[in-house]
Amino acid sequence: MKRIAIMTGGGDCPGLNAAIRAVVRVATNGFGYEVVGIQDGFEGLIENRSVPLAANNVRGILRVGGTILGSSNRTNPFRYNGPRGEHPETDASEEAFKNVSDLGIEALVVLGGDGTLLLAGQFADRYDIPMVGIPKTIDNDVRGSDYAIGFDTAVATVTDAVDKLHTTAESHHRVLFIETMGRTAGWIALYAGVAGGADVVLIPERAYNLDGIVNAIDARSSNGHRFTIAVVAEGVAAPSGGAVYKAKAGENHNWKLGGICQSLADVLDKRLDQEVRALVLGHLQRGGSPTPFDRALATQLGAKAVQTIADGGQNVVVGIQGLSVRTTPLREVTLGPRLVEDDHPMITAARQMGMYLG
Amino acid sequence: MKRIAIMTGGGDCPGLNAAIRAVVRVATNGFGYEVVGIQDGFEGLIENRSVPLAANNVRGILRVGGTILGSSNRTNPFRYNGPRGEHPETDASEEAFKNVSDLGIEALVVLGGDGTLLLAGQFADRYDIPMVGIPKTIDNDVRGSDYAIGFDTAVATVTDAVDKLHTTAESHHRVLFIETMGRTAGWIALYAGVAGGADVVLIPERAYNLDGIVNAIDARSSNGHRFTIAVVAEGVAAPSGGAVYKAKAGENHNWKLGGICQSLADVLDKRLDQEVRALVLGHLQRGGSPTPFDRALATQLGAKAVQTIADGGQNVVVGIQGLSVRTTPLREVTLGPRLVEDDHPMITAARQMGMYLG
Amino acid sequence: MKRIAIMTGGGDCPGLNAAIRAVVRVATNGFGYEVVGIQDGFEGLIENRSVPLAANNVRGILRVGGTILGSSNRTNPFRYNGPRGEHPETDASEEAFKNVSDLGIEALVVLGGDGTLLLAGQFADRYDIPMVGIPKTIDNDVRGSDYAIGFDTAVATVTDAVDKLHTTAESHHRVLFIETMGRTAGWIALYAGVAGGADVVLIPERAYNLDGIVNAIDARSSNGHRFTIAVVAEGVAAPSGGAVYKAKAGENHNWKLGGICQSLADVLDKRLDQEVRALVLGHLQRGGSPTPFDRALATQLGAKAVQTIADGGQNVVVGIQGLSVRTTPLREVTLGPRLVEDDHPMITAARQMGMYLG
Amino acid sequence: MKRIAIMTGGGDCPGLNAAIRAVVRVATNGFGYEVVGIQDGFEGLIENRSVPLAANNVRGILRVGGTILGSSNRTNPFRYNGPRGEHPETDASEEAFKNVSDLGIEALVVLGGDGTLLLAGQFADRYDIPMVGIPKTIDNDVRGSDYAIGFDTAVATVTDAVDKLHTTAESHHRVLFIETMGRTAGWIALYAGVAGGADVVLIPERAYNLDGIVNAIDARSSNGHRFTIAVVAEGVAAPSGGAVYKAKAGENHNWKLGGICQSLADVLDKRLDQEVRALVLGHLQRGGSPTPFDRALATQLGAKAVQTIADGGQNVVVGIQGLSVRTTPLREVTLGPRLVEDDHPMITAARQMGMYLG
Repeated sequence: MKRIAIMTGGGDCPGLNAAIRAVVRVATNGFGYEVVGIQDGFEGLIENRSVPLAANNVRGILRVGGTILGSSNRTNPFRYNGPRGEHPETDASEEAFKNVSDLGIEALVVLGGDGTLLLAGQFADRYDIPMVGIPKTIDNDVRGSDYAIGFDTAVATVTDAVDKLHTTAESHHRVLFIETMGRTAGWIALYAGVAGGADVVLIPERAYNLDGIVNAIDARSSNGHRFTIAVVAEGVAAPSGGAVYKAKAGENHNWKLGGICQSLADVLDKRLDQEVRALVLGHLQRGGSPTPFDRALATQLGAKAVQTIADGGQNVVVGIQGLSVRTTPLREVTLGPRLVEDDHPMITAARQMGMYLG
Repeated sequence: MKRIAIMTGGGDCPGLNAAIRAVVRVATNGFGYEVVGIQDGFEGLIENRSVPLAANNVRGILRVGGTILGSSNRTNPFRYNGPRGEHPETDASEEAFKNVSDLGIEALVVLGGDGTLLLAGQFADRYDIPMVGIPKTIDNDVRGSDYAIGFDTAVATVTDAVDKLHTTAESHHRVLFIETMGRTAGWIALYAGVAGGADVVLIPERAYNLDGIVNAIDARSSNGHRFTIAVVAEGVAAPSGGAVYKAKAGENHNWKLGGICQSLADVLDKRLDQEVRALVLGHLQRGGSPTPFDRALATQLGAKAVQTIADGGQNVVVGIQGLSVRTTPLREVTLGPRLVEDDHPMITAARQMGMYLG
Repeated sequence: MKRIAIMTGGGDCPGLNAAIRAVVRVATNGFGYEVVGIQDGFEGLIENRSVPLAANNVRGILRVGGTILGSSNRTNPFRYNGPRGEHPETDASEEAFKNVSDLGIEALVVLGGDGTLLLAGQFADRYDIPMVGIPKTIDNDVRGSDYAIGFDTAVATVTDAVDKLHTTAESHHRVLFIETMGRTAGWIALYAGVAGGADVVLIPERAYNLDGIVNAIDARSSNGHRFTIAVVAEGVAAPSGGAVYKAKAGENHNWKLGGICQSLADVLDKRLDQEVRALVLGHLQRGGSPTPFDRALATQLGAKAVQTIADGGQNVVVGIQGLSVRTTPLREVTLGPRLVEDDHPMITAARQMGMYLG
Repeated sequence: MKRIAIMTGGGDCPGLNAAIRAVVRVATNGFGYEVVGIQDGFEGLIENRSVPLAANNVRGILRVGGTILGSSNRTNPFRYNGPRGEHPETDASEEAFKNVSDLGIEALVVLGGDGTLLLAGQFADRYDIPMVGIPKTIDNDVRGSDYAIGFDTAVATVTDAVDKLHTTAESHHRVLFIETMGRTAGWIALYAGVAGGADVVLIPERAYNLDGIVNAIDARSSNGHRFTIAVVAEGVAAPSGGAVYKAKAGENHNWKLGGICQSLADVLDKRLDQEVRALVLGHLQRGGSPTPFDRALATQLGAKAVQTIADGGQNVVVGIQGLSVRTTPLREVTLGPRLVEDDHPMITAARQMGMYLG
């Protein structure tokens, strides 16, 4: 009987458990495989922490956020320095592979963002073990899939926050800057900004200037709207000396929690007649019960991952494209983050409606 | 200045207001058009009830379900019998066009399911007026768009109900049949069934038999699960004499509210050891604040509809395909309802997980 | 070490698990007791089905609806006819007490509505075992507590449904009758009707007449509101020959699922110009994650129940009164259901606002 | 015809609109009064900004957060320095009363926390105008009412956040400090901490020490729980030199946004093996659609306020006490904030369950 392993890596996001459940149920029920769950991502692979996963172990987890397997952020098997960073860096990949062999694991299903998937691919290449990736990140910036697991739920959480803050901003005539996750790509800010009816949306992909924001707020005031909601991705460049601000691709200047919105609020408070406030949503965006969309997505991708292993796939990533579930070679997926393009229909719509997007 | 009209037809669904808002704001802000809102669908077109719509009129409606324009079910301008069906049927389309002309309307944006869009297209053809359709129906069965406005919210409502009913079914060891909307196509039942972790999903597109359902429930009992959740689309054929039941395409045998699930519960109560109950969700599925997904979809489609008018489109329907927003000729959209196909990845995943789908 | 048992009886409701968790944690951590969970209410007591409950067994259940112990509806230990009603009725209480003794149980905590609490009290009296009741019922009709566990969540579910249905009723100009649970007492209908902004609320405690309903709807039409929302408790008397309808206390004439609202809709459809529809919410009202209010209530009552056992309480029921948690003798609690009185401030407020309440 | 005015003061909270709606509908429908809405609290009273409010003006606002009247924070009519603080302080109360007289206002309904109510009482006393207060504050610290409008919704928002953060903390094995509003009283932190299943709850009323927190976390680790959730009110004293920390009544040492939780996280990060994070919820807590509980409360209090005016009440505050709605003399209400007492049943329950509360 074939035995496969599943692990989750990187930051938490809703829908991981739904995907784990699908992988386990499809593998055991659909294909007669055994499944081993690796705990805490690469760390568990190196430290040899795992649990057998049967249908009963994934009961009731469909609607629960987080991952029953645990995760570890930024563990790199090729430069490993221990569970708490207590050792010097060393290549622990051989140790990891020994554990894989000892457990009789014939293939790996890896749930991760592009960082995790890249490392998993290097591991799979070096030790020649079939690996299928499932894209998961609230940032939604993985190539090869229209949506990554977790994104829809994060957008729902942020939109709910924008809805809640709307009435408060209106009652107190405030300008409110709401900071979302998104260091490199602005998907959350864009979708939640549009869905929440924000007046200003700033994302790392687009340059902006302070005058543009001030003009948008002034235009609202002229129309009798004494409040403004701005949704800003954390990776947006801070206003500094120059006139136009844009994050360079792959970089960000504001990763300190709460950086950019407080900066904007501080600068604009001096230029505006209205009270300006900043709010950082933080880790709320990573939690919560996955939306039905994310549960359905995670189920389809989990099933496809097992099917792909059965079909002999190696170093590919499953993804949804339109209504189809497809595989993409890992090397194409890891070419770089998937950014919001200028002609994305949401950008076009938002601009035509009169939102300020830079 | 160009003047366009917007109207909504058919059953209610969440996201109509979000689309109306996008059309009005894009038309007025992005293109400098004037917008007229036709009230209560074709009925308002015939009876000449309309309101001018400026940006201020659509303020605050993004997150509100329903339609500020009102709707009328099944009004056919070519066979019109009055607001309350009080007159004999007559062709009122000329009257409707006269109103259009008198109002100076140069193009129509119509929010509807395939019934409404078909009639709108015939009207547009006969009187040579540009018409752009926006697909909206919780049933999600309009061709040319991966998703229709309202579907995602309806799935969220049904999934929330399935989540709620899960613990009650489990506490009381019951078999529960939950009836969703979907007379011809089973999209809601399929998505909410998978997202809610149902054990049985029946949709009009697929034949089923009672033995299959009984076996699925028995298998669960053997595994110690003393409850079962079945999600059933209203259009599924009732169990009668024969062994296999399937709704014929385009038909349904159970459109009376609460028909199919009560039938199934009655029949199975005699064959099962456990208590069997039926629950009909009804019009709840048409209401509620639209999900962020539906708001974002409605905004993109609304903007594209106006853009399409500006580009000279005639009798086309806008839709989302993957991440793109595209137009499809109306004649292709109205070829028939978009049904769930046997190889849809959700069907495959659900079967591989061990759900009973017929 | 003292050993106590906990059981749940009657219909499902949200917050049972929160109370079980509180009882187990307070008993084990606060008092050093052992706790035994009786499964499926009196049925489990008779059939000797139980599980030991330590802190670990109640982990993660605070926010989950239903009861991990299971429940049985209408099992009477003094007239027991087997798990499936397969035997003739017999007094099984001695058997139940033998199990209690064999398990070394020194006191009982019983979560139930007034039916369950009455039986538990008789059992406790006959066999002289300390019993403390915790009031739980979405109907909220247990004396001695301002609120029973589950009520607040049920009101939230119904209000959410009323909110959802509002926009649909408005878009389609309909009169909508929404049927809630409440065979004897109208608490859910009253609270959710007021919280949801209904125009008509009918409860079993109050007589109504059809003219009153028609007048309320006509008055709305005169003010330009072409829709009306009526919230009706299932125990309301059906309109028949006479002019005024009222359920007699302790009775109800419409307990068949969906009875009263469909009756009202059928009768009024003939008298009104607008379309009239009925919707039955059903078991949705018993499910779902408990509201924070219900979790906090369940926690306080669960803790107080254990404290009461430690203090030597016998046949008392814990309850919240204002901000205090108190005990009431069981014999006072079971004098009859707690009904909505004519001078309840919610009745006064609703009438002064112009709602029709009979 | 009698004419009364309504105004809202202080920080935003959900349920204000529900109360305004009740006041307007009860006043106009139940008593035949006219109602004037004062905009932006005392500022509008001084600057003479008001709108007439009829039933139609409060349509649809029951479920909307915020206040259609606007509010102003900390405007003191006796020491007024202009809408933007641009003037030197002056006594503007005579101006305000002149506006009241000119508008023909015979009584005032004031929605506020204790600060606003105190000022309103002084104004009412000096100019001999009947004033009835309605307690509203998410902090829930107004005497004379078991609950203030907005509290239940704020607890729901915070509990939802705690629920969301639970799975993330668990997946990543983190200690998480969540900061809620509550500068003087810890009601939100206490209720949401208990309802969300936190392990540590710190409120300004209770002294704590770092060792207690560390011990609680260590005890969890010993039981295999590698994460901990702490809910902390913003008014809790920061850990400094000494061993025990408690906010003095009426003071707080950490009102800077995000102060206390970041301080605790910084200090504990050095003493703990696990990663420690802080999250500030901020103004989210003031927004959102009011819960059904808050809507029902606001409706009852709004109706009672008008009734009280009709009964000749002067300088009283309406409140809910158990299931009754009562009035309390304003001078008793403003004796000081209502704090969480040591023997509150929630404190008792939480301690008995093993939570650390100082």
